[in-house]
Amino acid sequence: MGSWQQRLDSSCAEGLHELFDILRIPSVSTEPAYAGEVRRCAQWVADRLTRAGVPEVEILETALHPVVFGRWHAAPDKPTLLIYGHYDVQPVDPIDLWTTDPFEPTVRDGKIYARGVSDMKANLATVVQAVEAVARTSGAPPVNLTFFFEGEEEIASPHAADVLSQHKDRFAADLVLSCDGGQAGPDQGKLTVAFKGVTGLQINLTTGSTDLHSGGYGAAVPNAAQAIAKLAASFHDDEGRVLVEGFYDDVIDLTDQDRAEFKAAETSDDDLMAEAGVRAFWGETGYTSQERRGGRPTIDVNGIWGGFQGAGVKTVTPCVAHLKVTSRLVANQDNRRIAGLIKEHARFHAPTGAEITFSDEEEGSEPYMAPRNFIGERVARDVLETHYGSPPQIARAGGSVPILATFKDILGIDTVTIGFGLPGSQAHAPNEWYLESQFDRARTIYAAFLEALGQ
Amino acid sequence: MGSWQQRLDSSCAEGLHELFDILRIPSVSTEPAYAGEVRRCAQWVADRLTRAGVPEVEILETALHPVVFGRWHAAPDKPTLLIYGHYDVQPVDPIDLWTTDPFEPTVRDGKIYARGVSDMKANLATVVQAVEAVARTSGAPPVNLTFFFEGEEEIASPHAADVLSQHKDRFAADLVLSCDGGQAGPDQGKLTVAFKGVTGLQINLTTGSTDLHSGGYGAAVPNAAQAIAKLAASFHDDEGRVLVEGFYDDVIDLTDQDRAEFKAAETSDDDLMAEAGVRAFWGETGYTSQERRGGRPTIDVNGIWGGFQGAGVKTVTPCVAHLKVTSRLVANQDNRRIAGLIKEHARFHAPTGAEITFSDEEEGSEPYMAPRNFIGERVARDVLETHYGSPPQIARAGGSVPILATFKDILGIDTVTIGFGLPGSQAHAPNEWYLESQFDRARTIYAAFLEALGQ
Repeated sequence: MGSWQQRLDSSCAEGLHELFDILRIPSVSTEPAYAGEVRRCAQWVADRLTRAGVPEVEILETALHPVVFGRWHAAPDKPTLLIYGHYDVQPVDPIDLWTTDPFEPTVRDGKIYARGVSDMKANLATVVQAVEAVARTSGAPPVNLTFFFEGEEEIASPHAADVLSQHKDRFAADLVLSCDGGQAGPDQGKLTVAFKGVTGLQINLTTGSTDLHSGGYGAAVPNAAQAIAKLAASFHDDEGRVLVEGFYDDVIDLTDQDRAEFKAAETSDDDLMAEAGVRAFWGETGYTSQERRGGRPTIDVNGIWGGFQGAGVKTVTPCVAHLKVTSRLVANQDNRRIAGLIKEHARFHAPTGAEITFSDEEEGSEPYMAPRNFIGERVARDVLETHYGSPPQIARAGGSVPILATFKDILGIDTVTIGFGLPGSQAHAPNEWYLESQFDRARTIYAAFLEALGQ
Repeated sequence: MGSWQQRLDSSCAEGLHELFDILRIPSVSTEPAYAGEVRRCAQWVADRLTRAGVPEVEILETALHPVVFGRWHAAPDKPTLLIYGHYDVQPVDPIDLWTTDPFEPTVRDGKIYARGVSDMKANLATVVQAVEAVARTSGAPPVNLTFFFEGEEEIASPHAADVLSQHKDRFAADLVLSCDGGQAGPDQGKLTVAFKGVTGLQINLTTGSTDLHSGGYGAAVPNAAQAIAKLAASFHDDEGRVLVEGFYDDVIDLTDQDRAEFKAAETSDDDLMAEAGVRAFWGETGYTSQERRGGRPTIDVNGIWGGFQGAGVKTVTPCVAHLKVTSRLVANQDNRRIAGLIKEHARFHAPTGAEITFSDEEEGSEPYMAPRNFIGERVARDVLETHYGSPPQIARAGGSVPILATFKDILGIDTVTIGFGLPGSQAHAPNEWYLESQFDRARTIYAAFLEALGQ
């Protein structure tokens, strides 16, 4: 039967061909008009699992886009691995900025351009191909495998928890391999061990029943624009620390090891400034930029508005103003508790005579941090070190992958993330790309991970 | 010949008829489409002056709407009075909220409803009728009269200074009677002795070249929405005092007499709250609401905006945000100096790495305060006290009448303001009204003022 590596080496063209197939399906989950394409993509994934040899494959319905479930348990004394991924993609707007059709994959300068290629159809195709190669080589996968490929990741996985709760027994496993992630560079591995949670809401502040002439009243009545500014400014001290009472209570402090890992994974400040297009950093004192981004919770004002925004001058004292606020959370903060603290803070800091209401509240998600050195991390670290010839960077994401906390919450299991997107790959933006040379690497590393986990 | 009072008493119906005539001319100076109507109104005023007996009447052109000039100097040893007013009106939008046609005057419950009736066509008609009555009774006016009726007051008198400079000799006078004002109530006289100046600008704050994902960068880069909020909040301390360095340097402090006058003219706090539709006051500590409104300078945020304003949550770190700021000034602040101090403050309070620019700057106007007890005030006070049976309230306006500082600057003379609008008369708003019973009173008081000034 040969080795799985030989099998992969001889099926590279075919594998890429298959990737191009799934990239041609515009499975845009955010737009109702594409619901049929999302379903077509689910069917493609289900068929592909079946073709790989997965004996039990089923499309599980949700209130919106379906989950593709698969199960191949043929290794009685071995652990059960839940392989997680998503087959839906972001919308393509602004379409004018795409050099080529987002749903007609095109290779230029060693990069495959297509919507969803980096996030995360290449990871989906390569992990399935790796499973197939390993299983065909030895008759069956070296560990028990369960598959959970959802079609709603790009809309914050609204039904994933329902599906997991409803089919809790079918999804029972020892650990999760999430394929939704990336590496540090073409020659540098990365293991992301923590993701932030998020919670958000809109604060509305009203100081009176009508806008007033600032000449007549501005000197004597509360001004909603000034009050919202003061409220927005009250969330941080001059050193960038969050001033919301109790905000840091549950935060797990960074250990010396954590800080050493941040240092090892650090982008230089100059590179980060260039990447972000800024001239200075800002943030919580006592932490490096990277520690803040990955390891410290934040409150971010995403929008502020009130009063006159037109050309020229209008002498108005506004009676209503608004603030959009989100908070990024780290373990072990609780998103509902933090939302509550932000509300208390807003009520407390509103000026006398101002009324505060909240709207557009988003339930958000909990932060997730894998227990350090659990089996998933250990195996992945070894596999990545062997492949790259150096240990992977240990990273923490500033963004959120809400479903990881859901796996922990409902199934009680932890997740290791291995994916092959690269920095700057324009996920969620025009001209999304995936480095073609990552394709072989991804298949090899996924296969090696399965093999190592089985040993 | 009879007395001027008899003459006025016997011409009331005719006088009102004449007022209705000028109210029917839609002399909206703010809208180019009405330029012809503004000119028709100027002609109406010029004709009316001629009919009143004014021997020299001329329409003086400006780059936009004309000034009606008149001159009747027949009292060699008497002072020369410059009578100021404007014949233009505000636009009528929102037209749906008018109960009757704004340019077809209608009387309901003793009020005349029409655009411009209160601001200030009734004052214009009545002062001309008073001049006519007094002059016809004794053959000539008791003082030398010069008339300046402009058509650009509602657009901040952009050419008034040009006209005054160009015709400085023709407009030479000893004092000004401005008819652009109001009384405290139907039975309570008021003399407004000070008007605030104003200056305004837009502050633009940029922290980077692009909006960023708040999960990826919010913890580490400056946030323009937060920075603009902090800047907006930096203009006042917790007690409502302006923190701009040097802001109060040139302010003339309120004297004990000033404060006693504010107290005498005071609206109750409950009434003021109800009128403004607010639940609390705000402002500079150490001063009453009325003192703040009339006697203390302010910085007002008229608008603030940056980042996401849509529905739901968007996790963005905004790179640009804006602030609209105006400042109301009292004597002897200088509007250009204050604009400069506000800019310095903004530059100083911008966070590291933020760029500040200014736009939409409005030159604004200087504050004006009449010298207390000058002849205009003395004569007006006596006339009002005789008429009402009690001394007039001495008031200071929170708003601006820019031309008063211009008269002082170019002609070197001071102004007394007597007008007959009443509180709540909806000037600049739908359903503007003028109390019909004020019509006789206005004619009588204007005539009495001319007579008293000639004695």
